[in-house]
Amino acid sequence: MGCATASSASPSDEQPFDSLSGFCDGLEPLGQADHATHIRKVQAALIDAGVDALIVEPGPTMFYLSGVRWWPSERAFLTVVPAEGRPWWVCPAFEADRARERAGDDADIRPWQEHESPYALVAKGLGPGRVAVDPGMRHFVYAGIADAVAPKAVESGRALVQRARIVKTTAELTLMDRANRATKAALAAVAPLTRVGMRESDVRAMIRDAQRTAGLTDIWALVLFGPNAAFPHGTGNERTLAAGDLVLVDTGGKLHGYCSDITRTWSVGPVSDESRRTFEVVLEAQQAAFEVLKPGVRCHDVDAAARAVIAKAGYGAGYSALTHRLGHGIGLQGHEDPYLVRGNNLVLQPGMTMSNEPGIYRPGEIGVRIEDIVAITDAGHRVFGPRVSSFDEPV
Amino acid sequence: MGCATASSASPSDEQPFDSLSGFCDGLEPLGQADHATHIRKVQAALIDAGVDALIVEPGPTMFYLSGVRWWPSERAFLTVVPAEGRPWWVCPAFEADRARERAGDDADIRPWQEHESPYALVAKGLGPGRVAVDPGMRHFVYAGIADAVAPKAVESGRALVQRARIVKTTAELTLMDRANRATKAALAAVAPLTRVGMRESDVRAMIRDAQRTAGLTDIWALVLFGPNAAFPHGTGNERTLAAGDLVLVDTGGKLHGYCSDITRTWSVGPVSDESRRTFEVVLEAQQAAFEVLKPGVRCHDVDAAARAVIAKAGYGAGYSALTHRLGHGIGLQGHEDPYLVRGNNLVLQPGMTMSNEPGIYRPGEIGVRIEDIVAITDAGHRVFGPRVSSFDEPV
Repeated sequence: MGCATASSASPSDEQPFDSLSGFCDGLEPLGQADHATHIRKVQAALIDAGVDALIVEPGPTMFYLSGVRWWPSERAFLTVVPAEGRPWWVCPAFEADRARERAGDDADIRPWQEHESPYALVAKGLGPGRVAVDPGMRHFVYAGIADAVAPKAVESGRALVQRARIVKTTAELTLMDRANRATKAALAAVAPLTRVGMRESDVRAMIRDAQRTAGLTDIWALVLFGPNAAFPHGTGNERTLAAGDLVLVDTGGKLHGYCSDITRTWSVGPVSDESRRTFEVVLEAQQAAFEVLKPGVRCHDVDAAARAVIAKAGYGAGYSALTHRLGHGIGLQGHEDPYLVRGNNLVLQPGMTMSNEPGIYRPGEIGVRIEDIVAITDAGHRVFGPRVSSFDEPV
Repeated sequence: MGCATASSASPSDEQPFDSLSGFCDGLEPLGQADHATHIRKVQAALIDAGVDALIVEPGPTMFYLSGVRWWPSERAFLTVVPAEGRPWWVCPAFEADRARERAGDDADIRPWQEHESPYALVAKGLGPGRVAVDPGMRHFVYAGIADAVAPKAVESGRALVQRARIVKTTAELTLMDRANRATKAALAAVAPLTRVGMRESDVRAMIRDAQRTAGLTDIWALVLFGPNAAFPHGTGNERTLAAGDLVLVDTGGKLHGYCSDITRTWSVGPVSDESRRTFEVVLEAQQAAFEVLKPGVRCHDVDAAARAVIAKAGYGAGYSALTHRLGHGIGLQGHEDPYLVRGNNLVLQPGMTMSNEPGIYRPGEIGVRIEDIVAITDAGHRVFGPRVSSFDEPV
């Protein structure tokens, strides 16, 4: 037993990230009142659109509506949100007790036996009006529902879900702020420990450990050295840190379901003037985007503001240096609406949250990216945690 | 650094599962020739059905066709399998190099820029014929494709995918056999270490550690003591092992993507005669199902054979004691076709693989389940690894 339990914890005599312990203390998961608010937001969207019900599989939207997590197996487990009245659940009969543990003793749970059709049960509970499904629903579940309600069509619920989830409540913003600050504190603790000769996986282990100590779950990390960072989402070829390499770490985790996502790029010892200049142009591009991040601005224009700086500095226009969009919304999913991308005319509103993450990539040579998460406010925006100030204070 | 890397490994002076080390050695992941076989199987299904192309998102079907794993993000990354000719890929432009690392330098990769529509690119590459999508595809991807190819309808590809994947090749069976034997070896190593006073999480840590040492990845484990085992998929209320409790462990992992899934139930010290009798009836029900597991039999009849034993022994008919179906197919997914369930007229064929897992559950009292994975053969079936022989040799 000693071994098995010890294997998931650090040895007790070495705890370099002890100072991060307790970082996320004092914040509770969202509760019943929050979920009631979220349900009302979805119902308002349903009523305005003239849709009678939204059907949701396990995943972020179900968690948003109820706090319930459930493995999305081949057995349909669904929440049906009617435009008015209480949501109800379609659940495998042998799982009903377990569902009640999570959804509450008074939940309206409608069980189906193994040889019965959950989709017939859905159809039976729906009125004659329009019905929509969560954008994350798997096709075989959608197809089952579509067959059961035919000839009525089943619509995409993407706009309905987006309208509710895209504007965060104060409670959601509080969790996101702390989660992103925790990731930044972890990066600040790890950066001074990076050394020439370490492997990417060594640094990945440290950044995971630091964020776990800070209280995050579901931690992921991209660690890319030197030319490997020219692949924005990494490469399969692990590199050992060489003199002159920049270190790029893009990482995050969750606090009670809400995501962090931060990128920092730093040097370990001297680097070329060109590496420094590339960093400074990326930082300037991020600053240009910050200047337009406020209510009333189109997503398109934020992306364009950052891209213009990079083009003007001579690194190339379009996607030639900044190969990806400028940013993505974030909340219960790491990537969600709104996207800061060319052609997106969605207008920013207070309560929306998103990344601002310009980068410059030259295959075979270098990759630099700086990423912060911001919330749009009435007055403009606020950044979750400290920003990068200069090449010499990069984390 | 010492801490961070040590935290993911056991201390070097305690390695109780050392004897399992190397258990999965000597088996390689499937290769290009296997994937070519899988593509031909899907293409045969397409031709027979008169469908021109199958479109697949990241997930088990994409892995089946190519060995490629990819995070299913909001950016469409798709494999299109035409009825004749080579599959092609739709890929975010900035990820094209990374896709080539995985799909091969000669892969036909068609990139889309951030502001462009991947679905328009799909539509452009398709002919005028019928098109189907993988059953796991998310609704927003399906909706994007459906809009792009309208007024042509997009069909469910479930039957096409099932036909290819449901009958395993010899290479697939070899990996599944070893994966399931590894899980059984891990259970055999852990069972003698269970003691009154341990928590469910203690045993879970051991069974994970043992399977990891044996060479499996993606390990999961349900560990349920005494009355907690009456919830077939567990409960949130952790229990400490008490005298007289049975221990139920349902666990598995993956070997090069192929799944194991084994359940064993055992006693730690004396238990009631009724616990022993319940175990023996479950074992007898499993035996009854084994006797009919052969080519030409309907899935329905296998489920019925096990259920009849439980009813005859006085534990109740229908779902009253055996609250779930008898079994599920298994392969790249833990649960896939064919399902051993009432009303399923699918006829067993050589090469199909599935669980045989009867159980008896009485809420507040007891849960017993025994689960093995079998492959249908020309002559009948074979079980992957040793079966349970009696209450006194339960693992």
